[in-house]
Amino acid sequence: MTRIRVSLSGGDALQQGDASLLEAWQRGSGARIWTDIEDPTEALLEELLERRFGFHELAAEDSLSPNTLPKYDAFPGYDFFVFRAVDVELREHRTQTLKLAAFLGPDFLFTVHAGALPAIDDAFSRLPNDLRMLNNGPDYLLYEIVDVMVDAHFPLLEKIEECVDALHEEIFRSSQPAQLDELLHLKRDVNALRRHSLPQRELLNLMSRGDSPVIQKQHLIYFRDLYDHMFRISETIDSERDMISGTMEAYLSVIANRTNEIMRVLTVLSTIMLPLTLIAGIYGMNFEHMPELHWLHGYPFALGLMAATVLIMLAFFWRKGWIGKTPSS
Amino acid sequence: MTRIRVSLSGGDALQQGDASLLEAWQRGSGARIWTDIEDPTEALLEELLERRFGFHELAAEDSLSPNTLPKYDAFPGYDFFVFRAVDVELREHRTQTLKLAAFLGPDFLFTVHAGALPAIDDAFSRLPNDLRMLNNGPDYLLYEIVDVMVDAHFPLLEKIEECVDALHEEIFRSSQPAQLDELLHLKRDVNALRRHSLPQRELLNLMSRGDSPVIQKQHLIYFRDLYDHMFRISETIDSERDMISGTMEAYLSVIANRTNEIMRVLTVLSTIMLPLTLIAGIYGMNFEHMPELHWLHGYPFALGLMAATVLIMLAFFWRKGWIGKTPSS
Amino acid sequence: MTRIRVSLSGGDALQQGDASLLEAWQRGSGARIWTDIEDPTEALLEELLERRFGFHELAAEDSLSPNTLPKYDAFPGYDFFVFRAVDVELREHRTQTLKLAAFLGPDFLFTVHAGALPAIDDAFSRLPNDLRMLNNGPDYLLYEIVDVMVDAHFPLLEKIEECVDALHEEIFRSSQPAQLDELLHLKRDVNALRRHSLPQRELLNLMSRGDSPVIQKQHLIYFRDLYDHMFRISETIDSERDMISGTMEAYLSVIANRTNEIMRVLTVLSTIMLPLTLIAGIYGMNFEHMPELHWLHGYPFALGLMAATVLIMLAFFWRKGWIGKTPSS
Amino acid sequence: MTRIRVSLSGGDALQQGDASLLEAWQRGSGARIWTDIEDPTEALLEELLERRFGFHELAAEDSLSPNTLPKYDAFPGYDFFVFRAVDVELREHRTQTLKLAAFLGPDFLFTVHAGALPAIDDAFSRLPNDLRMLNNGPDYLLYEIVDVMVDAHFPLLEKIEECVDALHEEIFRSSQPAQLDELLHLKRDVNALRRHSLPQRELLNLMSRGDSPVIQKQHLIYFRDLYDHMFRISETIDSERDMISGTMEAYLSVIANRTNEIMRVLTVLSTIMLPLTLIAGIYGMNFEHMPELHWLHGYPFALGLMAATVLIMLAFFWRKGWIGKTPSS
Amino acid sequence: MTRIRVSLSGGDALQQGDASLLEAWQRGSGARIWTDIEDPTEALLEELLERRFGFHELAAEDSLSPNTLPKYDAFPGYDFFVFRAVDVELREHRTQTLKLAAFLGPDFLFTVHAGALPAIDDAFSRLPNDLRMLNNGPDYLLYEIVDVMVDAHFPLLEKIEECVDALHEEIFRSSQPAQLDELLHLKRDVNALRRHSLPQRELLNLMSRGDSPVIQKQHLIYFRDLYDHMFRISETIDSERDMISGTMEAYLSVIANRTNEIMRVLTVLSTIMLPLTLIAGIYGMNFEHMPELHWLHGYPFALGLMAATVLIMLAFFWRKGWIGKTPSS
Repeated sequence: MTRIRVSLSGGDALQQGDASLLEAWQRGSGARIWTDIEDPTEALLEELLERRFGFHELAAEDSLSPNTLPKYDAFPGYDFFVFRAVDVELREHRTQTLKLAAFLGPDFLFTVHAGALPAIDDAFSRLPNDLRMLNNGPDYLLYEIVDVMVDAHFPLLEKIEECVDALHEEIFRSSQPAQLDELLHLKRDVNALRRHSLPQRELLNLMSRGDSPVIQKQHLIYFRDLYDHMFRISETIDSERDMISGTMEAYLSVIANRTNEIMRVLTVLSTIMLPLTLIAGIYGMNFEHMPELHWLHGYPFALGLMAATVLIMLAFFWRKGWIGKTPSS
Repeated sequence: MTRIRVSLSGGDALQQGDASLLEAWQRGSGARIWTDIEDPTEALLEELLERRFGFHELAAEDSLSPNTLPKYDAFPGYDFFVFRAVDVELREHRTQTLKLAAFLGPDFLFTVHAGALPAIDDAFSRLPNDLRMLNNGPDYLLYEIVDVMVDAHFPLLEKIEECVDALHEEIFRSSQPAQLDELLHLKRDVNALRRHSLPQRELLNLMSRGDSPVIQKQHLIYFRDLYDHMFRISETIDSERDMISGTMEAYLSVIANRTNEIMRVLTVLSTIMLPLTLIAGIYGMNFEHMPELHWLHGYPFALGLMAATVLIMLAFFWRKGWIGKTPSS
Repeated sequence: MTRIRVSLSGGDALQQGDASLLEAWQRGSGARIWTDIEDPTEALLEELLERRFGFHELAAEDSLSPNTLPKYDAFPGYDFFVFRAVDVELREHRTQTLKLAAFLGPDFLFTVHAGALPAIDDAFSRLPNDLRMLNNGPDYLLYEIVDVMVDAHFPLLEKIEECVDALHEEIFRSSQPAQLDELLHLKRDVNALRRHSLPQRELLNLMSRGDSPVIQKQHLIYFRDLYDHMFRISETIDSERDMISGTMEAYLSVIANRTNEIMRVLTVLSTIMLPLTLIAGIYGMNFEHMPELHWLHGYPFALGLMAATVLIMLAFFWRKGWIGKTPSS
Repeated sequence: MTRIRVSLSGGDALQQGDASLLEAWQRGSGARIWTDIEDPTEALLEELLERRFGFHELAAEDSLSPNTLPKYDAFPGYDFFVFRAVDVELREHRTQTLKLAAFLGPDFLFTVHAGALPAIDDAFSRLPNDLRMLNNGPDYLLYEIVDVMVDAHFPLLEKIEECVDALHEEIFRSSQPAQLDELLHLKRDVNALRRHSLPQRELLNLMSRGDSPVIQKQHLIYFRDLYDHMFRISETIDSERDMISGTMEAYLSVIANRTNEIMRVLTVLSTIMLPLTLIAGIYGMNFEHMPELHWLHGYPFALGLMAATVLIMLAFFWRKGWIGKTPSS
Repeated sequence: MTRIRVSLSGGDALQQGDASLLEAWQRGSGARIWTDIEDPTEALLEELLERRFGFHELAAEDSLSPNTLPKYDAFPGYDFFVFRAVDVELREHRTQTLKLAAFLGPDFLFTVHAGALPAIDDAFSRLPNDLRMLNNGPDYLLYEIVDVMVDAHFPLLEKIEECVDALHEEIFRSSQPAQLDELLHLKRDVNALRRHSLPQRELLNLMSRGDSPVIQKQHLIYFRDLYDHMFRISETIDSERDMISGTMEAYLSVIANRTNEIMRVLTVLSTIMLPLTLIAGIYGMNFEHMPELHWLHGYPFALGLMAATVLIMLAFFWRKGWIGKTPSS
């Protein structure tokens, strides 16, 4: 359901309310306004953003479409941004990113998003206690919101790192196809994060370089700080991609190793048993004239022959290093 | 068969017809014209484009050759573009891209293509209801056409994603060489798409930056929007490449896993059976003097010996973790 | 054997002959000359190019050395180019590239090469019928020659693509080491092509941007067209590299699959036969007291035991999905 | 525990002491000061750096946060740097990097770090003997500190190289999963080093290019030298990545080779033994009418049959190249 | 042992001698000097280069340190270069590169190196016969020296290529782990070469672009030529990297193929022998009542049963394509 929250600051006083507060405000009046629109309808956006505030139709459309990547468009009198926030839940291995569209002017900030965004709720509730957030200018308020969104990456990345580490350990104990499947899902998640974080990093780089006219010079350093965090995030993402690849290689090689060990056991046992069976078979033949069968010690002789065969075979395998030398493969 | 469709707008009125309408129009007359040429002969292009309208011979040639990649050439008085549209059918795993060549001037647009293009038909039929498309200038009309072409990528990409997801699931259930073959075909398709989409993205980037003198300033934002869509498309393509690679790795590792499991079963069974067979073979020997044969409980003794062997073997395999401990590999 | 062919155009008339025609020409005389030198000796180049026409010694040396990559050097009054043409024969899997060195001035073109070049022969024979080729300036003639060289890539690339496609099909039918060897050779060929085509593309890019003072402005568009072709060629080369890699992966996975299937057959058969052999072995033992041996139906009982074992085993394998469920692996 | 060490130079005299020395110093007084803060509390940094010396809050925060990557921020009147030093112990395969934050002004240097840094202790103890280090300017002192930090990479990299070389040798002697695990850990270490060294290299490049106003022109060459060392370090890191990858490939192929050899032994032995066992089985059948059984030389005949079978089999394997020809696989 | 060789040219006359000749020369005197220092001590370099000729201490240090990568530092009045020459011996698979440091001024060249460098010896002995080498300026002499060093790469690269080709052939005949080890060593060599050749290429690019003030304009083309050679060298190195990778893939796949073939032989033989052994086992059972045993043709019947089993099995394998159809795998 659509929900509009307006925060209006006229210097020392802050008013927070619904859409009706928008009436009390005019561009250039000195008052600063932040309007947050959650789950808007297309009609509302057209009515409010395009007609009433004259934002460009393409920006208004973009503020709703769910898959837009982080971007920056400069329009006369305002800037349009799209950010993406990670959803901190690793639900069913589907890392989701939520969109935040922002129209930023010298005295206004419009934020549009589908679904609740913790960073928005957080800023809305902190605002009454920290008027500076809006009085420093809407660009500073935007910084505060995006800061929460950016820092939300860190716990998620740690969670992923723990998952990969756990899988790595597990694989060296006992490897199963399900682990590979989980690794592939983690890889997909990390790749998705990477795809969103790279343009976001670029966007923050642009903002920190002073390309946007509505961001005040003295605030550039704050966006530079966000850029540094985002840079560290993408480095961490790359590191996790490497870890996942390494773990996959480990998985395959552990399987290869186990096949190897199984084969060795099979081979050692078969090649010992087969000659013995042959000896037993030979003395089980029914020829009339087989001298050994009539020897007094024929039976112990056959058993001795078998024992000798076993010893020769064991010596052969021991020399090959397949048994005894080391307990490993 | 060659087919020429002309749309001529003289302000409020729009005329749509065949090549004869071209006679009614002159450059710089204020009237705006869109001429679409489908399946032209080389002779016609030479006659019409080179001689009559003075377009450069290389551009005229390029407008017909089937494999040209997206490109932009500036000529005095007009620009020449090549775009590529995806064919939405995933027929026999051959994603095809169709070419659209466009000559764009301040008051004219010539589009040339081999085979029907839905984006062209769509624009032609919408034009009578939305005169603005041509009256805003031929560059805006071109935007409308390319917009349809670009957005046609999304359903195709979704279809590919579904294919890969389905194959991924299937592989973990039962893997077969045919799946690998299908993956390789999908990979080739995605690579082909990528090869066409990267220059197209670059082309739209150029157009949105105002490099082309015949694109009006106020329309740049529309081409910027196309660029953003195309950027998202190439990101999605990269993501699908990763998915396909991951699924191939899954395929190989599922096979390795299965070989492993088969080997284990073979080894466990062989190494249990071979010693038993040996025991049976020994007591099947025909030596005259074999005391066990004459024991009253010789037969149960032999069977007991076999049972003991089985138990020792099972204990060995159980300790190795090959049986019993977990039901997995 | 060294062979010099001179084409001299004095406006409407064209003279073609051997080195003696060089005497009739002077720089800046208005007449345009094209001198082609095939299989020259080092001494001839030094005599002719360095002493007589004053070309730089390094350029003269480069025009003969066989491995030079495509390059462009500007000298006062003339430009020096090296191009590479593919040899259209895929002989013994060795794609060869042939070198063409060119000294280009406002009214002269010297081409030097070892071995016959079809593009040169072609231009030499077309020249009498199309005086425009030389009268437009030696830069236009160079374009005509390089155009033939560039377009000669396409049939070769198609041939390679067909080879790879054929190998791909074959591998899924029956894979053999010879196929891998052929793939590796094709890969090497394609890599060699790539190494020559990338600098050639860059060279044509430079030429089309107007960096060379002896290429006339109105001819830049022709070199731009060559650049576009060369760009398409390198895209195709990249695509073929991907195809070859994909086919190699297919090869390895087809082998893994087959090993898998062989193992399954071996395992199923062994694990069915071994217990049966054991049963036969048991009733072949020579104990005095084996009640079954004296049963009237002892023999059918043993056979029944065997049949029951087979059924249990088959059920086990059927449940594992190794037999019956699907005909595939 | 927090520890503050101050070094104050007023020309020829150097005073070293704790925080109380800070009182004696004022910006622009001509005296040069180096203040090192080890394990500071957040409160201390805020009090000292933000309030007392007016450094920017973001820089003060960054100087404490443990994961910041190497960076450079210019502020009016001072520069802020973050470097990373390697911890020379390869403890439990966890290469750690320690952070050094530095505030550099024309006459002051503040260094902040968590945990002891050898480079800092080293500079602190050398300072009384080499007053030049501080008198040349704080930028030169910073160079001396960072120089020690950069050169500390080399012994670590050599240690890693030795580890990899040792593993490489070992793998060709006897490969074990533990080796792969160790390789994966080394790879992760090297990747972590690479992630820190690349931005550090970039940072030193910036410093050597004269981007920082507080680094004196005549000292740029020293930072250029650090950059060259850092460049060599990242080249060595890349080389070690390649070595680790190569060793991993070696590991997998050694396992594949061993499986191959084991299979060959199994196959040769099985295929020789099975026919012999069959022959013995045949003459162990109890048919009443088996002429061979009654032959005088039936038994030698059977043994001869077996010997012939062995010879035929050996010839077959010899022709296949599985035995005898070479001692290798 | 340290060895100093001085070549002093005063126009038409050349003097070659030891360090004492240095006394006879002064900067700016018109005479040109080349001083080569082989295996210097640190003390000598400090004395000679830093104190006497005033070269920067960092450059003097760099001229001795063994691992410096190719680099270029500009100092007032002279340039400092580091080049690397390959050691043409492929000794124990360790391609070594030797360092040459050069101080280049308008009338002097100091070269410093550890160990004998053929390029230096060559220049020293050619100098008396070709005064031009020094009279053209020390930059031209440097060109002559580096030219020999660059061209020394080609025979080494050819040697590597021959090694790889030979290994490739060998692997398809009979693959062994030692080959893989050799490939890995070759790969490491080639990677080491690549690491030295890329900065060297960049260095020559800088020199040919006229960045160094002590290289005369008319000599730039010579350094451009060196750059082209170096470019070709790095292309060749890349091509050899690809070849080595391809050969490694071939190695692994040849092993996989052989395992496959071995398995097939084992499977075919086992699955034929096991049923026969079972039949023999059945008729070797000692039941009192086994009608077949008493048949007159019981024995031939059993043999016939075996023959039929063999035929059925062979038909099965023939249909599977494992035997007979093609002689290949």
